[in-house]
Amino acid sequence: MAHASIGVGMIGCGTVGGGVAQLLREQADVYTRRLGAPLELRKVLVRDAMKARAAGLVPAALLTDEPRNFFGTHDMPIVVEVAGGRGPVSRHVAQCLEMGKHVVTANKLLLAEEGPEMFALARRHGASIAFDASCGGAVPIVTALQFGLMSNRIDALFGILNGTCNYILTQMTQHGKPYAAALAEAQAQGFAEADPALDVSGKDAAQKLAVLASLAFGVRARGEQVWCEGIDTLDLADIRFGAELGYEIKLLAIAQRATDGRVSLRVHPSFVHADLPLAQVHGAFNAISVYGHAAGHVMLYGRGAGRLPTASAVVSDLINVASGWYPVAFSRLRLWCDYHQPVQLIDPGDLVSRFYVRVNAKDVPGVMAKITTIFGDAGISLSAVLQHEAAVGQFVPVVITTHQAREGAIRGALKKVEQLDVIQGTPVCIRVVDMPQG
Amino acid sequence: MAHASIGVGMIGCGTVGGGVAQLLREQADVYTRRLGAPLELRKVLVRDAMKARAAGLVPAALLTDEPRNFFGTHDMPIVVEVAGGRGPVSRHVAQCLEMGKHVVTANKLLLAEEGPEMFALARRHGASIAFDASCGGAVPIVTALQFGLMSNRIDALFGILNGTCNYILTQMTQHGKPYAAALAEAQAQGFAEADPALDVSGKDAAQKLAVLASLAFGVRARGEQVWCEGIDTLDLADIRFGAELGYEIKLLAIAQRATDGRVSLRVHPSFVHADLPLAQVHGAFNAISVYGHAAGHVMLYGRGAGRLPTASAVVSDLINVASGWYPVAFSRLRLWCDYHQPVQLIDPGDLVSRFYVRVNAKDVPGVMAKITTIFGDAGISLSAVLQHEAAVGQFVPVVITTHQAREGAIRGALKKVEQLDVIQGTPVCIRVVDMPQG
Repeated sequence: MAHASIGVGMIGCGTVGGGVAQLLREQADVYTRRLGAPLELRKVLVRDAMKARAAGLVPAALLTDEPRNFFGTHDMPIVVEVAGGRGPVSRHVAQCLEMGKHVVTANKLLLAEEGPEMFALARRHGASIAFDASCGGAVPIVTALQFGLMSNRIDALFGILNGTCNYILTQMTQHGKPYAAALAEAQAQGFAEADPALDVSGKDAAQKLAVLASLAFGVRARGEQVWCEGIDTLDLADIRFGAELGYEIKLLAIAQRATDGRVSLRVHPSFVHADLPLAQVHGAFNAISVYGHAAGHVMLYGRGAGRLPTASAVVSDLINVASGWYPVAFSRLRLWCDYHQPVQLIDPGDLVSRFYVRVNAKDVPGVMAKITTIFGDAGISLSAVLQHEAAVGQFVPVVITTHQAREGAIRGALKKVEQLDVIQGTPVCIRVVDMPQG
Repeated sequence: MAHASIGVGMIGCGTVGGGVAQLLREQADVYTRRLGAPLELRKVLVRDAMKARAAGLVPAALLTDEPRNFFGTHDMPIVVEVAGGRGPVSRHVAQCLEMGKHVVTANKLLLAEEGPEMFALARRHGASIAFDASCGGAVPIVTALQFGLMSNRIDALFGILNGTCNYILTQMTQHGKPYAAALAEAQAQGFAEADPALDVSGKDAAQKLAVLASLAFGVRARGEQVWCEGIDTLDLADIRFGAELGYEIKLLAIAQRATDGRVSLRVHPSFVHADLPLAQVHGAFNAISVYGHAAGHVMLYGRGAGRLPTASAVVSDLINVASGWYPVAFSRLRLWCDYHQPVQLIDPGDLVSRFYVRVNAKDVPGVMAKITTIFGDAGISLSAVLQHEAAVGQFVPVVITTHQAREGAIRGALKKVEQLDVIQGTPVCIRVVDMPQG
């Protein structure tokens, strides 16, 4: 086993980069045994070498903030990109690919926005892109979609893809904390950034969904094509009413294919029945339920973020690339978005779903008739109504759940309900998401 | 894309084989697009060609019961083995490998008992063996362990690997059916064979555990090395008492590695805390919780058996082999059991666990003192005692749960308890399985 070492470059050296360096150092013997040759970190490109030296996550001699220095390093056929973001990082990744270097990346934004171009560039230069770390952290969902489930026509994919949001929603659900307090708790525990906007807006999940849907459905999908609603306007009251009705709230990333090949891509707060496996996913964990025409329901669960869980996926990809098999797969199979046509989206207004609606209604005779008449006129049938007792003449929350209805019809009906003089404020509307029989 | 087709042979044409043929027929366009060349079933070897022709699962012209005919078929570089069992099937698989044919197999028994020899044989002849269908049906657990989690030192693996048993236990737990009625229900629903012994004894799960543990820990493990207890002696009373204490019963296949490298391999009924993800796995589903040192807790869930779910895994493997990447992985990585040393087992008596114990004790003064004194003398401390009211002098069930204790110590104590004159029958003992923090 006296094989020459395989040189690895790294772009970025933050939390995940530090985890990658740690695994390569601590598990060197194991990886050498599995791979038949040692992996050697040769050069690490960072924005500020002084700062990175002070952090001390990799030997100082490896660090550089000079791209010329990084790209001039010999014997470095594989580059790990854990810097994140686009801009200069996109250019660095492109340069690696143009030099024929294989890239292992955790960068969902880059893939969600420039995936087709990057994959095509890799292909032109005999390189490959491995990206299991870009979605779901340690959860091997990309590997599963690429290889393990590849005999399937995937019909739908439901993901809890943002651990920060799931942590916040778990705090709200299990400990009755309002959103602001749950967010503060997530920040105190290190599960949320000081600026949580990317997470709580659903945009982070939307980027990951675009990457996964591209693989699952064989389409080109970009993050910005995903209909996106966040968790930052959720009211604890609705979580409690939902629980009374047997539902748990989750921020779901949903990709579904209609029989005509069009695809619905969306991220939004969703009520799911408490008995479903996805409803049992709590705290900072991620999970993805995939429905394949042959496999049926397959779910993968694990830590969606964090230093070592993400590094786990990066280094697994790295070994798979270094062994040579992943580049063969990348060049021979036609699974990646550079081969695909742009996704044909279903208009969100055309989606059919069940809905949970809450309005603040004055408790006077005839109110319920006014509301239900509007729904009835729109062809929407109701499945349950929940109203607790209150003093007559007060505003009280009225909760309604519907049977299957077009989203456009619901929105139209809610506009009319809002205009009733016995209604206070804007109605709350949360989709009730049913999973296929699988 | 005018590539020549890739010829595929199949050994066996029962339920799963029919599913494989169906997928290859119905999804031909999709697979050709993904692979860049069509897959073509060239010959199917069965025990009785007349019978297989009558079943009509594949075109009659493809069927043969003459091995010479099968092995003489040209342009058939890949063979799918879905016959199951050993004996002639082992010899056919060996012959394929000796001819340099890649083998895709769903045969857990063959791998659990002859894995090292078969893998070594494949390697000598430039062939490969793909086996994701051998464990967990549609659940891509083998792919995950081989590739997605390969950067990890796996510390433990807990699996619900037999859907028949899980279906029976779910019937007992959720519908209060005794074992015999639950088994009959499973048979009526097609989830259990007429002779259920292989499933309910735990032996089927033990074979799968040997295959998974070999991959997870880098050891050679055989099915017969797995300590095995089935579900056929479970009493509904214990499931109910367990529920009172917050536990759900599962048949768990467990592989754990001690810090000294020794491994514990066992299949037995287990109480798991109702909040754990594995406790939520109901009906005929399988799930595997893997604890990696970097990934933490990763769980995969899905249908563990059945025509299309198993065919899903077989055909995914088939495409991965046909594309050429899997054979590269098989030849370059050193993950498979032919590279490994025989597993060093931990003696079951040395295992430390928590225990649930139920005895039928006469409700007379001093009984509890006698029982607890025996446990105390054995150095076993108790965590809970449960005894419902009964008429004085009657035999009543006394349920005790212990803190961590050596299994040998528990067994010794229970022998002494059984000899007490105030005890009726043999004490029931069920392990309470705690999962790592992950």
